[in-house]
Amino acid sequence: MTTSTEHVTYGNTVCGIDGASLQITGCRFSASPMCDNFVDILMNAIAQTDTSKIWSDTDEMSTVYRGRDIHVVDAVRAFFTGAEQPNVHMTMEATFSKGCPGDRDADVYLDENDELANAHMRNKHFPVRAKIALYPMGVDDYMHHIAHVVNHAIDARIYSHTAHYNTYLAGDVQDIFDYIAWTVNYCGSNIHHY
Amino acid sequence: MTTSTEHVTYGNTVCGIDGASLQITGCRFSASPMCDNFVDILMNAIAQTDTSKIWSDTDEMSTVYRGRDIHVVDAVRAFFTGAEQPNVHMTMEATFSKGCPGDRDADVYLDENDELANAHMRNKHFPVRAKIALYPMGVDDYMHHIAHVVNHAIDARIYSHTAHYNTYLAGDVQDIFDYIAWTVNYCGSNIHHY
Repeated sequence: MTTSTEHVTYGNTVCGIDGASLQITGCRFSASPMCDNFVDILMNAIAQTDTSKIWSDTDEMSTVYRGRDIHVVDAVRAFFTGAEQPNVHMTMEATFSKGCPGDRDADVYLDENDELANAHMRNKHFPVRAKIALYPMGVDDYMHHIAHVVNHAIDARIYSHTAHYNTYLAGDVQDIFDYIAWTVNYCGSNIHHY
Repeated sequence: MTTSTEHVTYGNTVCGIDGASLQITGCRFSASPMCDNFVDILMNAIAQTDTSKIWSDTDEMSTVYRGRDIHVVDAVRAFFTGAEQPNVHMTMEATFSKGCPGDRDADVYLDENDELANAHMRNKHFPVRAKIALYPMGVDDYMHHIAHVVNHAIDARIYSHTAHYNTYLAGDVQDIFDYIAWTVNYCGSNIHHY
């Protein structure tokens, strides 16, 4: 078959060797407020999120944050809590990742300071339901990592139930994001690529 | 730490050994029409999708279909094309999967006939943008599988560009779902668990 575009190779990428030498955690997410004025809600949430401690890019479909794990989770938490509106049903899909063999030391800002830019957003509380799935790449014992992460949700009392292809969580938004922060730290420390 | 709920173990699960002996492909998806009447749109799309050749379950957050790959993709395609409305911006997040070591021979209907229940929905056309990510589990050479699948998108002329954590696609809805059907078949035949 002839093609008009060259193929990709991801050629020299080897599991266990991060393509980036820096410790870059990233999150790509898309929020969908199910109401007619969804554009205003999304634009306001993007505008009010302090991204000064991470690298950020928004395209027509999603936003990506890259930086140190604590600052990436802080910014995603701020975006989500900022987008929430009373009586609006909203979904958000988010992929947290670190260690891709195809990653590079680019499109990133790694702030050295631990102080969180959006700490004030932790005062907002509302109930959240979530479904999560963890994919540890390139390792045989991935089910043990998955069980460890699910068990932390049980310990944190935000575990709802297990269903095909997902684990369901339920709880206050801050408890859900505390769990995400823990999980991103665990995976970033114990799994080459997730 | 004390817990009120027992931990999970996913104990005897071993990569390369599917927990189910049947060839079960599944898809869990959540669609989010960004308009005030999202409930009607979703309920209508669920109602008009013929699920007679698969097993189906809808909960408060998502729907899961399980069965033979051709019938699962056919039903997801019918749901998505049925939910699309002129002038409504809609997102849908979908996870296709097969071969989880924790899966079992349950919650499934494997229709023996190749005739598609929703073939009539292939007459509907509209432009779609998608972002995809493939996670082949438990194998070292997962980047090669990912490159192979991305290259098929290039050959199918629906490849848009690669970005952090995702590959972007753009094209007619039927071309996108033809590509999903090809990918699900390729992964189900060549990867123990994806």
